Amino acid sequence: MTAHDFAAPDFSELSAGLMAHTEQLCRLTEVPGTIQRTFLSPVAAQLHAALSTRAAELGLESWVDAAGNWHAAQPGRTPGVPTFYIGSHLDTVPDGGRYDGLLGVLLGLELAGQLARRGAALPYRLEVLGFTEEEGVRFGVPFIGSLSALGEAEAMLELQDAQGVSVRQAMRDFGLDDARLQEAALTGPHLGFLEFHIEQGPVLENAGQPLGVVGALVGHHRLKITFTGRANHAGTTPMPLRRDALMAAAEWMLAAERLAQATPGLVATVGRIEVAPGASNVIPGRAELTLDLRHQDDALRAEKLGELQASLSEIATRRGVEAQAEVLTVIPAVPLDAALKAGLHRAAAQVGLHTTELVSGAGHDAMILARAMPAAMLFLRTPGGLSHHPDEAVAVEDVQAALEVGWHFLLQLGLAPLGDEQ
Amino acid sequence: MTAHDFAAPDFSELSAGLMAHTEQLCRLTEVPGTIQRTFLSPVAAQLHAALSTRAAELGLESWVDAAGNWHAAQPGRTPGVPTFYIGSHLDTVPDGGRYDGLLGVLLGLELAGQLARRGAALPYRLEVLGFTEEEGVRFGVPFIGSLSALGEAEAMLELQDAQGVSVRQAMRDFGLDDARLQEAALTGPHLGFLEFHIEQGPVLENAGQPLGVVGALVGHHRLKITFTGRANHAGTTPMPLRRDALMAAAEWMLAAERLAQATPGLVATVGRIEVAPGASNVIPGRAELTLDLRHQDDALRAEKLGELQASLSEIATRRGVEAQAEVLTVIPAVPLDAALKAGLHRAAAQVGLHTTELVSGAGHDAMILARAMPAAMLFLRTPGGLSHHPDEAVAVEDVQAALEVGWHFLLQLGLAPLGDEQ
Repeated sequence: MTAHDFAAPDFSELSAGLMAHTEQLCRLTEVPGTIQRTFLSPVAAQLHAALSTRAAELGLESWVDAAGNWHAAQPGRTPGVPTFYIGSHLDTVPDGGRYDGLLGVLLGLELAGQLARRGAALPYRLEVLGFTEEEGVRFGVPFIGSLSALGEAEAMLELQDAQGVSVRQAMRDFGLDDARLQEAALTGPHLGFLEFHIEQGPVLENAGQPLGVVGALVGHHRLKITFTGRANHAGTTPMPLRRDALMAAAEWMLAAERLAQATPGLVATVGRIEVAPGASNVIPGRAELTLDLRHQDDALRAEKLGELQASLSEIATRRGVEAQAEVLTVIPAVPLDAALKAGLHRAAAQVGLHTTELVSGAGHDAMILARAMPAAMLFLRTPGGLSHHPDEAVAVEDVQAALEVGWHFLLQLGLAPLGDEQ
Repeated sequence: MTAHDFAAPDFSELSAGLMAHTEQLCRLTEVPGTIQRTFLSPVAAQLHAALSTRAAELGLESWVDAAGNWHAAQPGRTPGVPTFYIGSHLDTVPDGGRYDGLLGVLLGLELAGQLARRGAALPYRLEVLGFTEEEGVRFGVPFIGSLSALGEAEAMLELQDAQGVSVRQAMRDFGLDDARLQEAALTGPHLGFLEFHIEQGPVLENAGQPLGVVGALVGHHRLKITFTGRANHAGTTPMPLRRDALMAAAEWMLAAERLAQATPGLVATVGRIEVAPGASNVIPGRAELTLDLRHQDDALRAEKLGELQASLSEIATRRGVEAQAEVLTVIPAVPLDAALKAGLHRAAAQVGLHTTELVSGAGHDAMILARAMPAAMLFLRTPGGLSHHPDEAVAVEDVQAALEVGWHFLLQLGLAPLGDEQ
């Protein structure tokens, strides 16, 4: 299907180089001995400089926009030619891994660079994006980078970090002009966005597949559940006379687990629990926990949440405790672009890979970009599903597979009109 | 059975006075607006002075021993005459109640004072004890007062409070001579010890009885249970691939609850639980909790603990997590003295009260004194079972009943040799 008069790069060599480059870039860190790059830190500027050095080697020009997002592209721009974006985020969680975010930027950079070097005449402009903020670490709110790219970050300027520094001030300290934040908005026409990202889950590893096409990003309910019973002496209160908030919470947690196990694609997680008064010899009078509920089908998720709320009432009534569920966040599911997904499947088939679709249980920049343009994601197998951890890994062979699939995808994208890809 | 040529006091008036006195004494507090009297605080000295004023009114002499325990008795001591002790502790938990401890001291003081005033010729010496420390608040170790009375507190001198002050230094600051701590040991011959105390549980209230004779103090296992699973992303880890430490903990907690519900007299409490990493969007990789297990039958309690450990292994294996149970404390059950118990039942019958026996689920000074002499306890009904709380209460009628039972008990104790009381 592809017909180009130039040789493909040596993907094996390219992937080995990319792994070494990642290793080297991760030495830029706020906390020696760990990997930490937070939004608008001095380390973020060092990383921009290092990426720009590589971009220049590959014949690309690079720049940092008004929000602190890093960009690279071939110099020059023909008016009216649409841009296809490829990238991910550059920030990390504290004590994070090497590949979450950064890998997607480097894959985009290498692909764009290799295509540019070979003079590939693509009928679109290819631009690499390195979003400055995705993890929500510093200001408690994620996606500041990709929201800036959509011109939607103004509302975040007054957010403050733990030291009371606002986003506005942090931008000034970084050398950015917050008054020009709106200039970070990407200008069209847009052809679409592709994000490579590690899966951060065990699905591909369990399926024995290096790569997976993301069908949709799950929707998400986050709740705070509070059980109020009666604190009492652990020794002097017989079992039948207790109103134990923690035991009620335990029963409900297991009900949530059973419901998720019985509902394909549903995940339910209690990640935090706190009891009061919290002494070993006092029956808990209060238990407060979080519920994180995700599914790609918003209607089904809402229905299952209803079942959990009914079970909450039933357990509370039976046990003589009060229970309250407060919905903190509702994020609807985001389906990704069908034509781009088909293009990814086809490119994978060209290099002999079978790619099934999987759902992203986490949020990603592609979820934000999908509001403004066709968006797609390709996941790389994550050993042990481990992420946000220093042992986060990716196999060099899987990076090679991603480069090959990306290469064919980008070439194809130049050949067939998007609408025909389905 | 009693044949004394003096009139009993007006118990109704006496109990009303005792309630008012309690209210007044509770204004002595470290934290205004709450009730707090910790070991060797300046407030403890103020309370000693106030109690001594009342003792003097009643014709008793009073003193503070080398450990800081408060004592009162009729002046003079005939060599060889055994002493019967009556009392409880004077310290409180932070934001504590009015009656936990203090009530037992005041009941002893009023009884001893009324008997002395009336010139009751008892064939034993009666001494009131107000232990300086029972709650374990300041140094994390309870019973320092009653252990001192047994000459067993030396090992505690180097314990430190949260400010790094040792027991030794705190004693010096209080005006005590720690070198003379051993002098706080009670010198024989001992006839026995009686402690009045609020039940701090709901059993008497549920049974509709004002007073209960304590048959035994439960034995006690305290354990730390640690579940180690695998922390992972709440969105990207499908249910079947999780090793959720908290869900394993929840299942086991409920197993412990069921076992206790099915075993008469057994109570099982999980009062603390902590999970790591403790973020709403991360599956807990670790859950650490305490188990407090109490029963008056040590062998049965050990057997049930074995069942819980088996269930721990089963749950852990099935869920692919590690589970570890560490026994932190084992306190054997303490049966109280049969002859003194019989005396309490008989005295109650004399005032028209039926008293069944109940088990104390909490530890008390009587548990320590029982090592050195016959010991008994009489519980007062506690509204709502509420204790260690500003709303802790006791009915004036129940205080009157306790005074009447105590009065007859102390008179009887002078008539019948202890060995015949059973």
